[in-house]
Amino acid sequence: MDYLSQYRKIRGLTLSLCAPLQKEDFVVQPAQNISPPKWHLAHTTWFFETFILKANMPTYQEFNTAYNFLFNSYYESVGDHAQQAGRGHFSRPTVEEIIAYREHVDRFMDLFLAEPIEEDLAETLILGLHHEQQHQELLLTDLKYILGNNPLFPPYFTAGKEPEKHHLPDDKPILMPEGIYEIGHTGEGFCFDNEMKKHKVYLQEYAIDSQLISNRDFLEFIESGGYQEFRFWHSEAWEWLKENKVNSPLYWHKINNEWQEYTLWGLHPLALQQPVCHVSYYEAAAFAAWAGMRLPTEEEWEAAADKFNWGRRWEWTGSAYLPYPGFQKREGATGEYNGKFMINQMVLRGASDATAKGHSRKTYRNFFHPAARWQYSGIRLAQTINL
Amino acid sequence: MDYLSQYRKIRGLTLSLCAPLQKEDFVVQPAQNISPPKWHLAHTTWFFETFILKANMPTYQEFNTAYNFLFNSYYESVGDHAQQAGRGHFSRPTVEEIIAYREHVDRFMDLFLAEPIEEDLAETLILGLHHEQQHQELLLTDLKYILGNNPLFPPYFTAGKEPEKHHLPDDKPILMPEGIYEIGHTGEGFCFDNEMKKHKVYLQEYAIDSQLISNRDFLEFIESGGYQEFRFWHSEAWEWLKENKVNSPLYWHKINNEWQEYTLWGLHPLALQQPVCHVSYYEAAAFAAWAGMRLPTEEEWEAAADKFNWGRRWEWTGSAYLPYPGFQKREGATGEYNGKFMINQMVLRGASDATAKGHSRKTYRNFFHPAARWQYSGIRLAQTINL
Amino acid sequence: MDYLSQYRKIRGLTLSLCAPLQKEDFVVQPAQNISPPKWHLAHTTWFFETFILKANMPTYQEFNTAYNFLFNSYYESVGDHAQQAGRGHFSRPTVEEIIAYREHVDRFMDLFLAEPIEEDLAETLILGLHHEQQHQELLLTDLKYILGNNPLFPPYFTAGKEPEKHHLPDDKPILMPEGIYEIGHTGEGFCFDNEMKKHKVYLQEYAIDSQLISNRDFLEFIESGGYQEFRFWHSEAWEWLKENKVNSPLYWHKINNEWQEYTLWGLHPLALQQPVCHVSYYEAAAFAAWAGMRLPTEEEWEAAADKFNWGRRWEWTGSAYLPYPGFQKREGATGEYNGKFMINQMVLRGASDATAKGHSRKTYRNFFHPAARWQYSGIRLAQTINL
Amino acid sequence: MDYLSQYRKIRGLTLSLCAPLQKEDFVVQPAQNISPPKWHLAHTTWFFETFILKANMPTYQEFNTAYNFLFNSYYESVGDHAQQAGRGHFSRPTVEEIIAYREHVDRFMDLFLAEPIEEDLAETLILGLHHEQQHQELLLTDLKYILGNNPLFPPYFTAGKEPEKHHLPDDKPILMPEGIYEIGHTGEGFCFDNEMKKHKVYLQEYAIDSQLISNRDFLEFIESGGYQEFRFWHSEAWEWLKENKVNSPLYWHKINNEWQEYTLWGLHPLALQQPVCHVSYYEAAAFAAWAGMRLPTEEEWEAAADKFNWGRRWEWTGSAYLPYPGFQKREGATGEYNGKFMINQMVLRGASDATAKGHSRKTYRNFFHPAARWQYSGIRLAQTINL
Repeated sequence: MDYLSQYRKIRGLTLSLCAPLQKEDFVVQPAQNISPPKWHLAHTTWFFETFILKANMPTYQEFNTAYNFLFNSYYESVGDHAQQAGRGHFSRPTVEEIIAYREHVDRFMDLFLAEPIEEDLAETLILGLHHEQQHQELLLTDLKYILGNNPLFPPYFTAGKEPEKHHLPDDKPILMPEGIYEIGHTGEGFCFDNEMKKHKVYLQEYAIDSQLISNRDFLEFIESGGYQEFRFWHSEAWEWLKENKVNSPLYWHKINNEWQEYTLWGLHPLALQQPVCHVSYYEAAAFAAWAGMRLPTEEEWEAAADKFNWGRRWEWTGSAYLPYPGFQKREGATGEYNGKFMINQMVLRGASDATAKGHSRKTYRNFFHPAARWQYSGIRLAQTINL
Repeated sequence: MDYLSQYRKIRGLTLSLCAPLQKEDFVVQPAQNISPPKWHLAHTTWFFETFILKANMPTYQEFNTAYNFLFNSYYESVGDHAQQAGRGHFSRPTVEEIIAYREHVDRFMDLFLAEPIEEDLAETLILGLHHEQQHQELLLTDLKYILGNNPLFPPYFTAGKEPEKHHLPDDKPILMPEGIYEIGHTGEGFCFDNEMKKHKVYLQEYAIDSQLISNRDFLEFIESGGYQEFRFWHSEAWEWLKENKVNSPLYWHKINNEWQEYTLWGLHPLALQQPVCHVSYYEAAAFAAWAGMRLPTEEEWEAAADKFNWGRRWEWTGSAYLPYPGFQKREGATGEYNGKFMINQMVLRGASDATAKGHSRKTYRNFFHPAARWQYSGIRLAQTINL
Repeated sequence: MDYLSQYRKIRGLTLSLCAPLQKEDFVVQPAQNISPPKWHLAHTTWFFETFILKANMPTYQEFNTAYNFLFNSYYESVGDHAQQAGRGHFSRPTVEEIIAYREHVDRFMDLFLAEPIEEDLAETLILGLHHEQQHQELLLTDLKYILGNNPLFPPYFTAGKEPEKHHLPDDKPILMPEGIYEIGHTGEGFCFDNEMKKHKVYLQEYAIDSQLISNRDFLEFIESGGYQEFRFWHSEAWEWLKENKVNSPLYWHKINNEWQEYTLWGLHPLALQQPVCHVSYYEAAAFAAWAGMRLPTEEEWEAAADKFNWGRRWEWTGSAYLPYPGFQKREGATGEYNGKFMINQMVLRGASDATAKGHSRKTYRNFFHPAARWQYSGIRLAQTINL
Repeated sequence: MDYLSQYRKIRGLTLSLCAPLQKEDFVVQPAQNISPPKWHLAHTTWFFETFILKANMPTYQEFNTAYNFLFNSYYESVGDHAQQAGRGHFSRPTVEEIIAYREHVDRFMDLFLAEPIEEDLAETLILGLHHEQQHQELLLTDLKYILGNNPLFPPYFTAGKEPEKHHLPDDKPILMPEGIYEIGHTGEGFCFDNEMKKHKVYLQEYAIDSQLISNRDFLEFIESGGYQEFRFWHSEAWEWLKENKVNSPLYWHKINNEWQEYTLWGLHPLALQQPVCHVSYYEAAAFAAWAGMRLPTEEEWEAAADKFNWGRRWEWTGSAYLPYPGFQKREGATGEYNGKFMINQMVLRGASDATAKGHSRKTYRNFFHPAARWQYSGIRLAQTINL
C-alpha cells in the first residue's frame, strides 16, 4: 500500500474508534496518566504537522500557533508544552475544532504525499503512523478508564462481545533448552529504535506456559489471601497496595458478594475463562511468587514466542526497560521517542485486544511503571529448570 | 410573585447563563474549588429533589438513584457523596441527560407547587431558590475560570461590555461616629441563618471609603514593589505568594510589557478605572497595609452600607467568619448550610457583577478562604479615628 | 527589681527547666511545630544578641556568625533563616556549645546592663524577657511532646505531682449583663502590641462557667460517640479528625481498655477530676456543640475574668486572632512579633500549668491554629442569654 | 578466626567508628533515608538478639521488650515496626542505654558462642556479621550526611587525609571479547542470596575503562552545560533535577566562585584528581551520554573486574536490580533480606572508601534508587564494540 493510502487508512481508524463517544467523553482526564480522547486526536495530528509539514512543506499554513503548546506531549526539544496533569482542564479547542484541525492537516498531507518523498522523511512518516497506532490503543484504554470509573458504568460497545480465548490444542508448558538465542529486530521493515540491535543472549533452560493466567486462576490467588500475605510482594508493592487499598485487578467489583467486571461491553459477572487483565507488575509478580514460579524475562519470552499464542494481553516480563547492546537514539526530536524512558519501568511483550491490527511483532517492547494497570496487561508464567 | 412563578423564573435563569457555552465547557474542573457547569445544573436540581420532592411528595419518581451520590455536594447527613476534587472526572451523565433531569424535577415541582404548601416547607423551598441563586454566581465565576485559564482565552460574552463604574457625586471617605450600632438581620423576609440574630455592637469612630480600590490604585501597589516587600504581608500570605508565584491579581497578564486582563469579554488591556477584582484576602490586606489603612470589619461595613454604593465586588472585610450571638443552625440536613464552615474563612460583604439580581442585601455574609481569588472580590479601605 | 536582676533570674529559670533532660532530648523535633530544646536555648539568646547587643553595644564580639542563620526564628527583616521544619536536622552546635553561647551573651549583657539604658531600649529588653518567658512555656510543651511521643514514655518529673484542681466555693455559671465593656490593655506596665488599644465593646447578656471542663466531662463526650457524629464538628475539623484518626485528646491512650494519660510525671490512669488538656479548637468547639453551649468570645472571657479562677489551661475562645481597633505594629524587626500572624488562628485566654510565674494577665492574647493540641489547652463554656 | 573472635572484632569496629561523634550526632535524621547513628548501633544488635538469641537461647533475657518495635528495620514477619521516617524523632533510649543494650547482647552472645553451633545457625550468625558490616558503611555515609549538611561543616576526622587515587600503570580501556561468561557466586564462602546462582551470560564485545571518572572529568561536564541540556538525561531525571535544583554532585559547594567539597575531613577545595563521588544514577547516566559512552552492565563489570582496580567507589551499572536465574530467597524472616527490594533500583558494583575491610567481592550486588547520592557512588564508563 502506498504511503498516502496507509496514512488515510490509519487516520480514519482513529476517528472511527471515537464513534461511540458522547462529546463529554472527549474532554475528561480522571487520572494523571489518562489523556482526554480529544487530546489524542490532536496530538497525533500535531506529530504530522510538526515533524512532516512544518519541517518540510514551505506552503503549509499552520492551523493555530497555540496548538504546539497544547498538543506537544513531552518533546522538550520542540518547545514548551502543557503539563500532562492538566490536559483535562481545557474545554477548548472543542471536539469540532480539533476535527477541523485533523482535516486541515490531512488536506495538506494529501498534497504533500502526492509527490514522492525522501527516505529520511519516509522514516519519519512511518514513525508517525506507528505513533498514531500506539495512540489508538491508548485511546481505547483511556476511554475504558473514563467510562469504567464512572459510577454509571456506561458501555462503549452496545453490540458484540469480548473475543473468545484461543487455545493451543495442547496447553502444556513449553520447554526451552539452555543455549544462545538471538534477540531483537534486524531493522528490516519498521521497528522502534528500542528493538535494536539484534544480539545474542545466553538463556538457562526454562519452561514457559503456553497459556495466559485466567480470571479463574487469579480469583484463586485472591481467595487464598494473596493480597494479604506480605511474603509474595515487593516491599514497595506492599506500600502501594496498602495506600491504594488494592485487593483485586482494576475494574473488578465485588457487588452483593459476586465478582463483576467492567469491560467495554459494560459491567457483567466475571468471565472466569478469560485471561486476567488490568494487573500491575506488582500483582503479576506476587501472583507468580504465590504460584511458586516467576515471570519470564523479555528474552525468554521472545525466544519462545513462536511456540505459543499471544496477542490478547500485554504480558508483564521480569525485565526492566533498558537499552539493548548497541542501542542508538534517532537523531533530532524523534530521538526522544524511547531512550529517555529507560529507567524504572518494566517491559511488557505481546499485544492486546486493544492493539491496532498490524501493530504487533514479537520483538516489540512495550513498557510501563510497575504500578500501571489501565493497559490490557496480563500474566504468563515461567520457571528456570535444572540450575 | 407566587412560589411557582419564582421557581420557574430562577430555574430558567440558571439555564440561560449556560447559553454561550460549548458542550465541552460544561465538563471540566481546572482547579479543585471549581465545579463543572453541568455539576451546578444537576446539584441545584438535586437540592429540590432531595429536600422537597423525595421528602414530601409520595408520588415523586426518582430520576436516577445514582445521582444522589454524584450531586450531593457535601451534606454528610444525606449519605455518601463524590469527592469535590473528582467532579471533573465524570463525563456522564451528559449535559443532555442533566437537562432531562432538570426537566423531570421541574415537572414534578410544577405539580407540587400547584397546591399550597406548609410554612416549614416554604422555608425550605425559598432556601432552595436562594441556593440556586448562589450557584448562579458560582456558575459564572467557575466558567470564567474555565475559559480564563485556557490558553486560547475564549470570551463568554461576544457582545456588550463590562458595567461602568458608578460613582457617588462626592467620593470622600465617610465618617462614622463612635457608638452602638445594630447589626444583623431581623429575620423578616428571607435571610440565611448566619445573618442572625440582630444584635448590638459598639464601634469606635472610623472612616470608610466611599469608593472601591481601582485597577489604577492596585497597579501603583504592584509598581512600587508591594508584592516584594514582606512587611505588608501576613506570614502565611508570604508563603502562599512565594509558592504560587503570585505577583498580580488573578486574570492579569503582562504581555509584551503591557498589562492585559481577561474578563468575560475576552483578553483586553487593563481598564484602569474599573474596581480591582479577583484579589485574595492576603492581597487585600497587604494593599491596605501598603496604603497605611486597613479593611473595614463586617460590622463597620454594614453600619455604613447605606452611605456608599456597593454591588460590583464582593468586598473583603477584616472579620473572620464566626457565628453571631444567639446563632442557631436550622434543624435537619439544611442545618449544614452555614455553621460548619465557620472556621478559617474571612467575611466578604456586598455583592458583585456576577450576583443574581435580587440576591443581595446589606446583612448578607459571604465567606471564603483567605487565598480564594476566583470570585469577584475587591477592596474598600477604612481606618480607625481618634483612638 | 532592676533590669539586670530580672534578666539573670529569667535566664536562669530557662536553664533550670532543662535540668531533668538527657543530652539526646535537646536535639529532636518529632513534629514540625516542635522545636528542639537546644534551639529554644539558642534562639532566646539570639534575641538579646541581635536586638540589644549587636544593635547597641559597639564592643560586643559576635559569638559565631553562622548562628544568626540557625537561630533566627522567622524575622524576615533580619536576614535568611533556617526552615522551621529542619531544626531537628542539626546535631551541631552541641548543647555544650549553646550553653557557652548563652554564657557569652549573658556576660556581655551583664556589662551592658551595668549602665542605665534608654527607654526605647528598655522596651526591647523587656520584650526580650517576655519573649524568653514565652519560650519557657514552649520549652516545656515541646519536651512534653518529645517525651510523650516516645514509646518508652519517660517521665520529666521524678518527684512531686500534678497541681490540684482549684475550686471556687460555688461553681455555678457567672451571669454577665448586657452592656458596654472595656477590653484590652491600657499600655501601662508591659503588654504585647496585640493587647492594645483599650476599647469599648458591646456584649449581649451571657453566662460563663466558673469551672473548666474536666477529664470526666470530656470522657462522657467520647463515650456518647462525640467523635463519630458529624453534626458537632466543623467541616474541616471532620477532615482533620478522619485524616489523623483522632478520637481522644493528645496524650490519652486506651491500654487494656483503660484510659491512661501521659503527663510530665509519666503515663498513669486518667485523673478524672483534672481539667481536660491538649484539645484542639476543633475538639473544644465540638464538645461545646455537644453540650448545647458554645465557647466564650475573648471579650466575654476578659470581661468576666475577675469572677472565676483561671491559670491552669489556656482556654480556647470562639474569637479569631485579629487586630484590635487602633492596633499598631512596633517599629522595626520586633514589629514582626504579632501582627503577621493575625490570620487563620484562634485566640486562647488565660495561662497554664506551664506558664512562667508572672507571665500572665487577663488581657493576654495567646493564639494557635485550630488543630494545635500540644499546648495546655482546655475548655470553658458559655452561652448567650435572652437574645 | 572462630565465630566468637569474628563477632567481637566486627562488633568492636562498629563502636570505634562512633568515637569521633558528639552525643548529639547520634540522634538526628536530616533526611528520610538517613538513620541516626544510635539507631544503627541498636538495630544491628537487635538482629543478633532476634534471630540468634531469642530464637535459640532459652536462657536469654530480653533487654527491653519495646526495642523490637523501635529497632526492627522493616522485617514485616517479625512484628510491627516504627516508621523509617520517624527514627530521628526518638531521643530515648539514650546513647548510653543503647550501648548497655549492645553490651547485654554481646554478653549473651559470648556465652552462646562458647558452645559449637549448628550449620543453619552459623549461616544466620554470619549473615548477622555481614549485616553489621553493611551497617558500618551506612553508619559512615549517614554521619557524613549529618555533618555535611550542617551549616557549620564539622569534620569527622581531625587527622589523616583522603586515600590517594590508585592507578594501574596503564590506564587504557580494557577490551573484552564477545562470548560466554560465568557470572554470580558459587555459594562457597559467604555471599548474599542475590549473588546466586552462578550462570552463563553472553556478552557482545565491549571496552571498559580501567579508571574511574575523576572530579576533573565531571567538572568538565558541568562547565560545558551538562546539567542544562535535556538530551543527556532520562525524562524522570530531568524532573528530579529541576525539582531538587541539582547542578553538581552532593557535597559540592560553589563558594566565592570556587568549588569546595565536603569530605569527612571537612570543607576544602575540590580535589580534581580524586574519583567523582556522590552522584546519582541519573547523573552517572547523563555523564556517560555526554561522553558518548554508557555505563557497563553488571555482567560486563563482573567479567572484567579482575583487570582493573576497584574499591574506592561503588560504581553505578546500567543494570536494574533483578533476580538471577534460579534465585531463591532464604527461608524465614531473613528471606526478606534482598528479594523484596528487586524493583525500581539499579545495581552498583565494587566497594568504597567506606566499606568495611573484608566486606567486598567482585560478585557483590549493591543497589539503590536512581536518585540516591549519599553513598560513595562513582562512575566507570564502557561501550559496545563492533555491533
